[in-house]
Amino acid sequence: MNGNQLIGNSESAEGGSTFNAINPGTGETLEPAFHEATQGEIDKTLELAKEAAPFLRNASGSDRKRLLDAIAEEMEADAEAIKDRVGAETGYPQPRLDGEFGRTVMQLRVFGKVAKEGDWVGPRIDTAIPDRDPLPKPDLRRMLVPVGPVVIFGASNFPLAISVAGGDPASALAAGCPIVTKGHPSHPGSSELVARAVLRGVEKAGFPEGTFSMLQGATNETGKALVEHPDTSAVAFTGSLRGGRSLFDIAAARPNPIPVYAEMGSVNPQFVFPGKLNSDPSQFAESLFGSVTMGNGQFCTCPSMVFVPEGEDLSKMTDRYLELVGESQGAALLNPGIANAFSQGVDQWKSIEGVEVLGEGTLEGTAVGAAPVIAKVSLEDFKKNPEPFMHEVFGPSTMFVACPDADSFVEASESFDGQLGSSIHCSNDEVSSASELIGKIGEFSGRVCINSFPTGIEVCDSVHHGGPYPATTDAQHTSIGTAGISRWGRPISFQGTPDELLPDELKNGNPLGLMRLVDGKWTRDSVS
Amino acid sequence: MNGNQLIGNSESAEGGSTFNAINPGTGETLEPAFHEATQGEIDKTLELAKEAAPFLRNASGSDRKRLLDAIAEEMEADAEAIKDRVGAETGYPQPRLDGEFGRTVMQLRVFGKVAKEGDWVGPRIDTAIPDRDPLPKPDLRRMLVPVGPVVIFGASNFPLAISVAGGDPASALAAGCPIVTKGHPSHPGSSELVARAVLRGVEKAGFPEGTFSMLQGATNETGKALVEHPDTSAVAFTGSLRGGRSLFDIAAARPNPIPVYAEMGSVNPQFVFPGKLNSDPSQFAESLFGSVTMGNGQFCTCPSMVFVPEGEDLSKMTDRYLELVGESQGAALLNPGIANAFSQGVDQWKSIEGVEVLGEGTLEGTAVGAAPVIAKVSLEDFKKNPEPFMHEVFGPSTMFVACPDADSFVEASESFDGQLGSSIHCSNDEVSSASELIGKIGEFSGRVCINSFPTGIEVCDSVHHGGPYPATTDAQHTSIGTAGISRWGRPISFQGTPDELLPDELKNGNPLGLMRLVDGKWTRDSVS
Repeated sequence: MNGNQLIGNSESAEGGSTFNAINPGTGETLEPAFHEATQGEIDKTLELAKEAAPFLRNASGSDRKRLLDAIAEEMEADAEAIKDRVGAETGYPQPRLDGEFGRTVMQLRVFGKVAKEGDWVGPRIDTAIPDRDPLPKPDLRRMLVPVGPVVIFGASNFPLAISVAGGDPASALAAGCPIVTKGHPSHPGSSELVARAVLRGVEKAGFPEGTFSMLQGATNETGKALVEHPDTSAVAFTGSLRGGRSLFDIAAARPNPIPVYAEMGSVNPQFVFPGKLNSDPSQFAESLFGSVTMGNGQFCTCPSMVFVPEGEDLSKMTDRYLELVGESQGAALLNPGIANAFSQGVDQWKSIEGVEVLGEGTLEGTAVGAAPVIAKVSLEDFKKNPEPFMHEVFGPSTMFVACPDADSFVEASESFDGQLGSSIHCSNDEVSSASELIGKIGEFSGRVCINSFPTGIEVCDSVHHGGPYPATTDAQHTSIGTAGISRWGRPISFQGTPDELLPDELKNGNPLGLMRLVDGKWTRDSVS
Repeated sequence: MNGNQLIGNSESAEGGSTFNAINPGTGETLEPAFHEATQGEIDKTLELAKEAAPFLRNASGSDRKRLLDAIAEEMEADAEAIKDRVGAETGYPQPRLDGEFGRTVMQLRVFGKVAKEGDWVGPRIDTAIPDRDPLPKPDLRRMLVPVGPVVIFGASNFPLAISVAGGDPASALAAGCPIVTKGHPSHPGSSELVARAVLRGVEKAGFPEGTFSMLQGATNETGKALVEHPDTSAVAFTGSLRGGRSLFDIAAARPNPIPVYAEMGSVNPQFVFPGKLNSDPSQFAESLFGSVTMGNGQFCTCPSMVFVPEGEDLSKMTDRYLELVGESQGAALLNPGIANAFSQGVDQWKSIEGVEVLGEGTLEGTAVGAAPVIAKVSLEDFKKNPEPFMHEVFGPSTMFVACPDADSFVEASESFDGQLGSSIHCSNDEVSSASELIGKIGEFSGRVCINSFPTGIEVCDSVHHGGPYPATTDAQHTSIGTAGISRWGRPISFQGTPDELLPDELKNGNPLGLMRLVDGKWTRDSVS
């Protein structure tokens, strides 16, 4: 680890400006210093990526799987060093480090499988009818092809799973796109160690220089230069609304606009029906507390707002939650910026009419961090002006909204803009009465959970981690799960093309055995 | 026909400013006058659309098919009046009117079928594994849901098939989205007659007011107000680069950005191999001329640039093309703006170093129109500065680019930005040598045609009518063909949701018989 930019097979450190990571637990500055990427380095990186694009585009799904598996192996070979550095840069406890490392390696392998299976290109074939009256029907065949070099901004809160070798890079490589990653400035050392593992995997798999590069940077200018670069075809980002919107605006203002897939978080409202609460108010408080304090609240899907009917059960639930808050000593937050924003957010809560902060934990033994905070407001006061409640207080915060009854949930739900995940908690007897609310929260949510919290996202085919703005900048795509690969493809149709010139995915013989829509029927059969 | 705005079941004409269509053949002004929509009318229209959204979202695919079939029937019931007015407003000859009307009604029925079949929502199911170690796996189920009210701008050049009841509205209704269409100001009477047919279909099918509205307008301000409206969820547009980019910029600058699917045309390069040309130069000239003059060149897929090897066959081909140009009397163009842009475009060609205008037809018997124009440039001169050649000269224009040989095509192709359709014309013996060029033109084209021109787009599952910017503002979507429906859906996942609360598309029993990805396997089976 030396703080250099890793540009294909070469390293450089041209930038005069440098930055260091800090250990949020101890407050200590970590070595080495990392250099801000220069425009010249950015140009060189994108040039290499552009040169590598044809190789990746033409690489078979099996080749891409070999690449992703090789990266996974190289990650595993360096697992301890990587996890140690991530721990030092984030303050995450060992189980979280192990869990996130495991998920990251798993994602690489899952996307290798997706690449090899190949169904993601969505092949469609309409065969010719040369003697159709009045005009012959041409042979048309359609599939997704890779969009080209993708720039990926690593997240602060998932230094492995949503970063340099996370779900965004894994899906982009699986799709056949070269990638340029920018490590998050909170954990540049983690980014460098992971990037070195990725580069070893690229070399081992025989993929060209330019398949992968990693640049460091802590300024908005570096991000802007990456998004503005003419050879950048698409962008992935996970972070704040302000950061994501800024990159979106830069991309939209380009001479040729490009897509920015920004996942920007949300408050993820929870609606708790009385029967569910009544069955065990303490247990509900414990589950909620567990979800809110996962990663010390630094999950995009943290359930920050909880709508609960007023009454004795709410009191019991609150009492238990307050106990847990009181017992908590808090934990590290990723960087001083997040810690400041958290205390400012709590201060802003306090300034809203009707909001009462019921309890705040006491932070102990951590230099940069936060302890859980719980506040309460009545539905009436919430409805007077819901807007300030829509700002995510990123960290272990919870706002209880005391409602007259469950019937008021539907109207309450109308205040929400785009959300990543919303939940309904109800007893079996209440399921049918929750039907209208499910429809309502489906209108603004990417994921609707029944009797579970949105944290702990399953990486699978059926998950959608996205949602209408401001949860993301593109409601059609997910940043987690196998469907995320479709961000990196665009359709192309071949008309009247001889079989030998078609990609394997579209050849008559279906050599890859794909599921294809042939003359209106889904089939794995060859075309006769 | 009275020139009113058709806002659900009510009509209004609040705008003081009016405009009339003209008959481009005779130059005559057509009655009635049409009113520019006001902000108040736009607000009312979107409000109605928003109110109708839940009904459409919850309507089954069969219900939506019933709606689209009813609209098709009402269109057919008024076919002659509609075609007469379209003819008067466009100058299109009867076969074109019949053909486009037939395609429009066919598209409505095709999208009804797509809605009923329901596979477009892409259902994915991962079943729960409650005892998975270390964490239980939740049940997750994903599908597309409609995005909400869609604003659709009708095209100038397809007054039926890409307009008020064209492919955009048909696909949006099939997806369950209410629609607000703005007729193109060149053919407001056609728009009104079609809109009245659609409204009769909406009523007949029992769909609510607000399912469909049609507003008239000739100003940029009206378009801006429609795109800026907070209840607009997505936009479709077919037209000029300037118009499409302007709407894209407005949408991207909203507090909550929304997608604009703008198809903005291109020059659609053709690469002609010597063996193909040699087999019958005159025949090739005739086919090319037929494609270029379809709709008098007013097709987005018009093959405006033709790369051909220099030599005797090019001379023969050119001679025949010049004969055809000489015999032509031209034809109407849709409006004076298009006619002016065409002659300005030809003048700009003349000002480029090395460009020689070989022939121009003589316009006869048409007030507003153009006759074919053919020009020539050497590849050397083209390569000096390709930029001015990238501007579409919308109308019956053709630019021959004389190349030293077919080997120069690959390098020539590197000058192109996004294109809707590009073609390679080659003999059977030349197919294998065209392989590299196919790859190259696939990098910037939405559709690659072998031995056919891009005009005459087949409406089917496998067509892609789109392409990288500036052909469109969103390279991931098509505006023609059944895949166009995916513009109007966004994914949602249900986690741990009881079967009775799931949409039919995701229920265990698979009551709609959809093709679903269940635990990693494509199947129509029910979930056990």
